[in-house]
Amino acid sequence: MELFTTHDTLVRYLEIRNYTESLCEPLHTEDYIPQPAVFVSPPKWHLGHTTWFFEEFILKKHLGGYKVFHPKFSFLFNSYYNLVGDRVERANRGVLTRPSVKEVFEYRKYVDQKITELFQSNPENINELETLLELGLNHEQQHQELFITDTKYTLSLNPLKPEVYPNTKINKPLEAKKQWLKLDEGIYDIGFEGDGFCYDNELGRHKVFLHSYEITDWLVTNREYVQFIEDDGYERFDLWLDEGWAWRKESEVDAPLYWKKIEGKWFTYTLAGMKELDLDATLSHVSYYEAAAFAEWKGMRLPTEFEWEAASDQFNWGTRWEWTNSAYLPYPKFAKAEGAIGEYNGKFMINQMVLRGASVATSPNHSRKTYRNFFHPHYQWQFTGIRLARSI
Amino acid sequence: MELFTTHDTLVRYLEIRNYTESLCEPLHTEDYIPQPAVFVSPPKWHLGHTTWFFEEFILKKHLGGYKVFHPKFSFLFNSYYNLVGDRVERANRGVLTRPSVKEVFEYRKYVDQKITELFQSNPENINELETLLELGLNHEQQHQELFITDTKYTLSLNPLKPEVYPNTKINKPLEAKKQWLKLDEGIYDIGFEGDGFCYDNELGRHKVFLHSYEITDWLVTNREYVQFIEDDGYERFDLWLDEGWAWRKESEVDAPLYWKKIEGKWFTYTLAGMKELDLDATLSHVSYYEAAAFAEWKGMRLPTEFEWEAASDQFNWGTRWEWTNSAYLPYPKFAKAEGAIGEYNGKFMINQMVLRGASVATSPNHSRKTYRNFFHPHYQWQFTGIRLARSI
Amino acid sequence: MELFTTHDTLVRYLEIRNYTESLCEPLHTEDYIPQPAVFVSPPKWHLGHTTWFFEEFILKKHLGGYKVFHPKFSFLFNSYYNLVGDRVERANRGVLTRPSVKEVFEYRKYVDQKITELFQSNPENINELETLLELGLNHEQQHQELFITDTKYTLSLNPLKPEVYPNTKINKPLEAKKQWLKLDEGIYDIGFEGDGFCYDNELGRHKVFLHSYEITDWLVTNREYVQFIEDDGYERFDLWLDEGWAWRKESEVDAPLYWKKIEGKWFTYTLAGMKELDLDATLSHVSYYEAAAFAEWKGMRLPTEFEWEAASDQFNWGTRWEWTNSAYLPYPKFAKAEGAIGEYNGKFMINQMVLRGASVATSPNHSRKTYRNFFHPHYQWQFTGIRLARSI
Amino acid sequence: MELFTTHDTLVRYLEIRNYTESLCEPLHTEDYIPQPAVFVSPPKWHLGHTTWFFEEFILKKHLGGYKVFHPKFSFLFNSYYNLVGDRVERANRGVLTRPSVKEVFEYRKYVDQKITELFQSNPENINELETLLELGLNHEQQHQELFITDTKYTLSLNPLKPEVYPNTKINKPLEAKKQWLKLDEGIYDIGFEGDGFCYDNELGRHKVFLHSYEITDWLVTNREYVQFIEDDGYERFDLWLDEGWAWRKESEVDAPLYWKKIEGKWFTYTLAGMKELDLDATLSHVSYYEAAAFAEWKGMRLPTEFEWEAASDQFNWGTRWEWTNSAYLPYPKFAKAEGAIGEYNGKFMINQMVLRGASVATSPNHSRKTYRNFFHPHYQWQFTGIRLARSI
Repeated sequence: MELFTTHDTLVRYLEIRNYTESLCEPLHTEDYIPQPAVFVSPPKWHLGHTTWFFEEFILKKHLGGYKVFHPKFSFLFNSYYNLVGDRVERANRGVLTRPSVKEVFEYRKYVDQKITELFQSNPENINELETLLELGLNHEQQHQELFITDTKYTLSLNPLKPEVYPNTKINKPLEAKKQWLKLDEGIYDIGFEGDGFCYDNELGRHKVFLHSYEITDWLVTNREYVQFIEDDGYERFDLWLDEGWAWRKESEVDAPLYWKKIEGKWFTYTLAGMKELDLDATLSHVSYYEAAAFAEWKGMRLPTEFEWEAASDQFNWGTRWEWTNSAYLPYPKFAKAEGAIGEYNGKFMINQMVLRGASVATSPNHSRKTYRNFFHPHYQWQFTGIRLARSI
Repeated sequence: MELFTTHDTLVRYLEIRNYTESLCEPLHTEDYIPQPAVFVSPPKWHLGHTTWFFEEFILKKHLGGYKVFHPKFSFLFNSYYNLVGDRVERANRGVLTRPSVKEVFEYRKYVDQKITELFQSNPENINELETLLELGLNHEQQHQELFITDTKYTLSLNPLKPEVYPNTKINKPLEAKKQWLKLDEGIYDIGFEGDGFCYDNELGRHKVFLHSYEITDWLVTNREYVQFIEDDGYERFDLWLDEGWAWRKESEVDAPLYWKKIEGKWFTYTLAGMKELDLDATLSHVSYYEAAAFAEWKGMRLPTEFEWEAASDQFNWGTRWEWTNSAYLPYPKFAKAEGAIGEYNGKFMINQMVLRGASVATSPNHSRKTYRNFFHPHYQWQFTGIRLARSI
Repeated sequence: MELFTTHDTLVRYLEIRNYTESLCEPLHTEDYIPQPAVFVSPPKWHLGHTTWFFEEFILKKHLGGYKVFHPKFSFLFNSYYNLVGDRVERANRGVLTRPSVKEVFEYRKYVDQKITELFQSNPENINELETLLELGLNHEQQHQELFITDTKYTLSLNPLKPEVYPNTKINKPLEAKKQWLKLDEGIYDIGFEGDGFCYDNELGRHKVFLHSYEITDWLVTNREYVQFIEDDGYERFDLWLDEGWAWRKESEVDAPLYWKKIEGKWFTYTLAGMKELDLDATLSHVSYYEAAAFAEWKGMRLPTEFEWEAASDQFNWGTRWEWTNSAYLPYPKFAKAEGAIGEYNGKFMINQMVLRGASVATSPNHSRKTYRNFFHPHYQWQFTGIRLARSI
Repeated sequence: MELFTTHDTLVRYLEIRNYTESLCEPLHTEDYIPQPAVFVSPPKWHLGHTTWFFEEFILKKHLGGYKVFHPKFSFLFNSYYNLVGDRVERANRGVLTRPSVKEVFEYRKYVDQKITELFQSNPENINELETLLELGLNHEQQHQELFITDTKYTLSLNPLKPEVYPNTKINKPLEAKKQWLKLDEGIYDIGFEGDGFCYDNELGRHKVFLHSYEITDWLVTNREYVQFIEDDGYERFDLWLDEGWAWRKESEVDAPLYWKKIEGKWFTYTLAGMKELDLDATLSHVSYYEAAAFAEWKGMRLPTEFEWEAASDQFNWGTRWEWTNSAYLPYPKFAKAEGAIGEYNGKFMINQMVLRGASVATSPNHSRKTYRNFFHPHYQWQFTGIRLARSI
């Protein structure tokens, strides 16, 4: 039974690790290096960091006689785990031309092989190992999405507007009747339950009282958002949160990220190059500030994360991270894990807003209705969208 | 009946207006001018701004033939009401040496006289006027507290450590049994009800489900907080939120605002000058980041604003604004008022945390258990304190 | 003889000290406080700092039993003399509401009285004392000019555009034939000679070889400068130094400081309020960047400080500090004085340009042709002007 | 005769172009990308920019029917020539992963071939072309030096401290008798004369009067500089220029760039990796601020650029750019060239100090005693050193 589990786990491990590498295929060596903004990490860093996670939290502790691939990689590829030790400043990840891309792939291969050895050696504490492995795999899946969004951001800044992933398709909206769904007031259960994996921030299933409300079964389209722009949505301070308005003026944002108006027509940068905007496609790359201003313009509001979760079985989701009107805060019985792993989620619970759902860039099998994603309200570079709600 | 009401209203108006001026008594003319930080406003500006509020929203609209005291004062004393027009940049309030302090007091007298005339003239829309007047008075009371905290902040930066309000007393803690109060799980009603005044952000009384929890009947004392410091609380990143830790390092904060250790003893700046720290007094002037780190160190947490309100009849409060673990967000049916008044609260509902209670600097009759105060998590200059909670 | 000298010195001392106080007459108490920019100091600080100079460098060392007026004033009113000890950060001078303006005037009176006592007591080292006193008086005269330019800057930011010095006159240009003066190539002597006072940076009279050149006998007028503006001088990057162009774009400067175009006409803020620009008056309040761009537009250049000094007997000067094309650097045999006094000039010899002449704000008897004033190239707030030159 | 000249020119062209590429040999593709600071450019950018110079100023104007290699390369590889059009912001050069390194090498090959065609086609205006070509070649040589200093800077930030150019040798000091050379007062001729190439800023040979002075025939060694450090040179504000002291504190510099003290011994990063500091080697990588503080500590001073040039036949130079005490300003008859080429030098004549000599990174045949290099006073990343002088 355990062997069987282990075998499955290993297959899953290798599949996910290979998926990361499949994302790299269209890249040139040069593409792995730049970090054009602090919130972006270079592809090479994603490749190394996800690998380091397995080395640091599994191999070094559980594989007897394990020899690290390179003594300085822990310093290079640690992200924010203070307990693990010093690390390269986040803003300096784009400086690291060495190790080469080739060496990082060798690092991946080395760690994959050692993980394989470990799991094939009938280790004693198999349950703990599987828990850690599962965390590592989910961590890698998160970075798969960041790999895509970060790469898109970097390439978009290039005046050549490169077409790097030519097969990327503009997604058609998910099926919807374009209806308002009505939810009655009452007590709803919120949070993860079941056997599978979830993050610590989803745990502590608990009750929330919701007053009756309505929520759309569709996500806002580009066409709807263009109407907002054409109605001077970006010029009317009364629609914006105060800090949103300050952000808009200082950053000079006047459209979703990657949009550009050329001779009266909207275009947008995609991983397949510049494309004319498909008005029927689902809106993407808006900040929380824009989402909130749009909702205000509509005379509606964003749903809370609880309203979203309570209604989520009644609509299709999964192509956009949907901004909610909930701040990222702990559930009533939230408890951090012991040690460095405890730095995974809890310490970010301030000044960020919760996003629910998943996006076109989310890895396969890495979404569930209780998943709590979170970003600062000014970020646009994820595949973010808008679902509206209203109290009744 | 109306006349009677009007008379009462006027008496109340004049009492509150006079209270503002009584706060000025110990100040020198020089003290009215500086703005040492963007979040602080000069006393002169508070005096003018609160007066402008009555002029702008009441006299200009409701007193026939009203002539503004000075045509440029609207520009000088508007705070953040975009709908009312241009205004002096917030950061430049400390530049305005003219109008003189004397002129601003004359402006107050002029407006007070006109308000008196208006209310004694048996105006038709007396209810609407009283609503606006009530808002203006509550607004002035809010600025009375800011007047005190801003003045304290400015004076504290002076190496002479002036003793400006010599009669200021160190408050003894509110009476408490130092017990944990237990609240059962269930549905609680949250939000304002009744006939008196409240802000729009308290409205929409609604139901919230709370799981069972405990909350202290006392506020953290200086002695308890000194233990946190002595246990290296400011040096242990694992106790802090990530952005809290960044704030601590960048701002080099290692104690509550105004604390200074001199030859092994803690002193604190008060409006009566530097005083040795009373260890039995209630802690004050901590940021949300410090409050959260302290709670983490205790193995507990801060209450949510709902837990606070639900339990508030069971403990004494009113000497410290108490940080809660709730972000400042709208209640389910929150609706902004029409026009410029609608800018009062709603547009600040991002990146701020809710504080409940009231403080020693809060004006008389300006507190209630449903009051939602809010500040960014790094601010220390209000009289802020800590009450602990825990899930059970 | 010495007594006689001492008497003259004392008369001169009191005259200069009184002149400072005469500048204060039109000010309100409020005007003494603000510091709207780091490069500006509040009037109260000028009053205290110049007084501190006499206390620190003369009374404390030379008047037996001297008791300082206040033990903390040295901390408050030291400017940049590291050797003297800690001091209030330059950017925080606007916070100091205490000591009151009245106390600072008492401080002045106290120090004046003690200086009088000292000089009337037949001190032994009278020569050294007179040297220090002379330095202190010239220092005070420099601050008299800064008092005026700083006050003008602060008042200009007030939307009320106060008319504080109503008797201030727009100066007519100095008499000139509007001719180009020709100087032959040869060796010229540069630097101070004679018995009177000069700063250390003027000393070390030395020879400079100049190639033949021409220089105007007049200063650029507002009319000439308006032509530059109307010829798109602020829009043509090819006229500007690279850092000047960056400054222009970032600061959004498009005219001299205090100029404002209202309905097609130029106005300028003066200490007597807003006035229509007199096109025949001498241009003022331009940065070095603007002066250099203007000269480039004319196809000419600014004179070096040596060309200016060599020609200075041939033209009238004294209403504007004239930007030269010389960087502020030491003369060949420059030597810093010993001790804190040595911090007066030498340590500023980097990244600043020399200005020659004097301005309408310069104190009486505080100018000479060898005087080397210096400011960073982007500053506009002194009474700065332009004289053109060309090689032949 | 002309054909012969052309042949020589072409040989020289190809030699210099090949030398650039020889510098690339030890680099990995990854190394071509990062820009860790605004003042640094990525190697790929240097390769493209120098090539663009020939395309823009020669091929597009003089080779009939010339087709640009890529229509967007002008935008990508223009540096600061406003007249040529828009360009990538200087700070964003590190984002450009595309074109690939390979394409940039193809671009070089294409332009080299077209230049060859042009010069072999017996063009009419051969003199003008040779002048432009000579400028382009000197421009490329300047970038060869920047290529080396920028690459060193980027690699130094890598915690792996890569050994990229293993054959790099620590230079022994130039031969010197360690004597002071005495120069008599008199008129000296300064500036370029002769037939060869020079920059416009060296032209206008003119007379300068120098008072008698002495200058060393050696450059300051690491040993001498370590004495300065050990005598608390970095802690004594009285040795520093005011802005130098501010720079030192803010940047936390306490040694030359690349120096690191490990267990009591000084090490330094070189292109061959970390090496123990050779105390007898010539000091390198100091800012002007450090050079000036060191000279002050010695009780001496830096020479002016005129003193340097007048004495330069009497000492060996060429391994360090030597900071002088002269600001970068125009010679008396300086005139900018017409058009974009005129942006080469003149517009930088503010806030920079002149360096004379050449360094170990300077390209062969790219130095002469009249050469005027210039940098802002805080930069350390060139191979800069110190020669002392004193007035007598």
